Amino acid sequence: MKANPPDSSPPTVIAVDAMGGDYAPGEVVRGAALVSLTTTIHTLLVGDPDQIKHHLQENEHNPAQIVIIPTDQWITNEDHPREAIMHKPRASMLIAAELCGQKQAHGLVSAGNTGAYVLSVARHIPRLPGIHKTAIAAVYPTQNVQRRHDPFALLLDVGANVHCSVDDLVKFALMGKIYASDVKGVANPTIALLNMGKESHKGGDILTRTYAELERLEGLNFVGNIEGNEIMKGLADVVITEGYVGNIVMKTIEGIAETLQHLGRYAFKHRFIWMLGLIALSGGIRQLKQVTDYSEYGGAPLLGFQEIVIKAHGRSKAKAISNAIKVAAKTHRDGVCAKIAAEVAKFMTDNPEKNSLT
Amino acid sequence: MKANPPDSSPPTVIAVDAMGGDYAPGEVVRGAALVSLTTTIHTLLVGDPDQIKHHLQENEHNPAQIVIIPTDQWITNEDHPREAIMHKPRASMLIAAELCGQKQAHGLVSAGNTGAYVLSVARHIPRLPGIHKTAIAAVYPTQNVQRRHDPFALLLDVGANVHCSVDDLVKFALMGKIYASDVKGVANPTIALLNMGKESHKGGDILTRTYAELERLEGLNFVGNIEGNEIMKGLADVVITEGYVGNIVMKTIEGIAETLQHLGRYAFKHRFIWMLGLIALSGGIRQLKQVTDYSEYGGAPLLGFQEIVIKAHGRSKAKAISNAIKVAAKTHRDGVCAKIAAEVAKFMTDNPEKNSLT
Repeated sequence: MKANPPDSSPPTVIAVDAMGGDYAPGEVVRGAALVSLTTTIHTLLVGDPDQIKHHLQENEHNPAQIVIIPTDQWITNEDHPREAIMHKPRASMLIAAELCGQKQAHGLVSAGNTGAYVLSVARHIPRLPGIHKTAIAAVYPTQNVQRRHDPFALLLDVGANVHCSVDDLVKFALMGKIYASDVKGVANPTIALLNMGKESHKGGDILTRTYAELERLEGLNFVGNIEGNEIMKGLADVVITEGYVGNIVMKTIEGIAETLQHLGRYAFKHRFIWMLGLIALSGGIRQLKQVTDYSEYGGAPLLGFQEIVIKAHGRSKAKAISNAIKVAAKTHRDGVCAKIAAEVAKFMTDNPEKNSLT
Repeated sequence: MKANPPDSSPPTVIAVDAMGGDYAPGEVVRGAALVSLTTTIHTLLVGDPDQIKHHLQENEHNPAQIVIIPTDQWITNEDHPREAIMHKPRASMLIAAELCGQKQAHGLVSAGNTGAYVLSVARHIPRLPGIHKTAIAAVYPTQNVQRRHDPFALLLDVGANVHCSVDDLVKFALMGKIYASDVKGVANPTIALLNMGKESHKGGDILTRTYAELERLEGLNFVGNIEGNEIMKGLADVVITEGYVGNIVMKTIEGIAETLQHLGRYAFKHRFIWMLGLIALSGGIRQLKQVTDYSEYGGAPLLGFQEIVIKAHGRSKAKAISNAIKVAAKTHRDGVCAKIAAEVAKFMTDNPEKNSLT
């Protein structure tokens, strides 16, 4: 991503939970420092001021673009999301979400506890009109290495919810379409429904009705059902599923990457030829790992809120954090939340019978 | 698997759909021929008599152990299951299922159309008392290469059903327990529920109640929820899930094996070092492929019927077919269906309130 040329428009401000993530606050602060040197983005770093100052002192940065928002509480990965939100009212991710909800920031980034993050955001940032369930969209690379446009695809929801209604899944499709257009630069991204077979009647009542609804919708490039083995093939730009299934699928893929790495360690001790194989194949394994390892493309958006919210992977280092901040800023500048709101509003106008659900 | 020593007990008879599978009837007939040379198992080969005779002539076999059951209809993978069953009443898999239902065979094997197979079996073989939904159990290798007992695990259901009730899932656990004990030789196999988090309250109403029920059951080695990334790790001997999710997970894993093979072909053209890597890593990739490629361990059982029913993979060659026939025979001799029936009956007696569901 290129740095923005300096201009007269007010800077984009991103609130960052400096205390969230396996390598926080050090790598988060380093990520913000990188952003301050290469872009015009301003970041609000929410967290322990002493630690943040310490890491800023150690890393070159532009102090004019970084503001420290001090707090003495933060949520760890071990915390139970609902209890943490209740007992840590000054937690860094809650304050960061509040800054964004109060329009003091244009976007939000955290690499912390996913469940607590979803709750923090839900508390402080309103959902878009017509959206009942927000969705975490995993951005993942497909095997479409030969396609001209970039080979990334979206899978949503991967765990903001458990089960979904037909209306929820249709709105995931609308939100995914707009985000994919923006992220991928594809005018009319292909949308598919994750299912246990190709036929429109597969997968039970909700999926059957969702299929019919998506097929009926004008302006939606719906390509039908896809099965598990097609997720990585890039047959669709946006893959829709309920959070329970999306979460299990994403973690299954993550587990396979781990299994291959485990084989690598095993191989290192036992089979030299396997070790050589793993080194040679590292490009392919990295492709798998990237499914849940967002360092290259800036994290998973939480779609359906009035502001742009990015969940960076827990294992994010400085580069991943800086990409997440840049993606948040770009998504804000492109007006993606407003575009999603317009798409959903159009759907509600065209389908007045759906309004009763709001 | 070793050949049975000749003895005076009547032979085990397995009905085989000779026309089902990508390489049928040639490889199916070859599989039966292999079995006739190395075991005392008798097979009933159901299909086109001319083609079966032709392949038998070309392969060494013991004619005393093979009977041809002629028919002029069979179901292809392209056939719509329900329509095929309706319009092809003499289809080879229907006749094979009928032979088994009439006790002319002790077990059943097909590598054909999965949906049509489930329907054929349901038409001719009764379910066990107390079983409302049968389940396809995928047998897959885990990364537990260092454990003393074999590293295989069961995932069920992978597509006989879409959604399941608490009672269905509990009975999958009971059936999986018995089958795993038999296949793996582990006295008290560990059972886990596939979910989107470790905590007992995760995954919505049905999974939460299933968790409580499994935890409460005496004699069941329930180890709690496992997540997608733990499936391949072998943290449990038996993993329980509804068919919709199991099917997507199994196909996702299959898809990753395909992706790695695709990378191999791409690599062959573009990156010699990747090709070397794939050759060196073939053991690891084979481990992934085996999840859905049952050649080594004889196919996926359909659990819940009064007779043993094995679904061999569509791509089965002779060795896989012969293993499927041998597994069916061994499972019959071990009385696994009767043991499952006893386990379910015990559950019904201990939990009389569940009988209202039958």
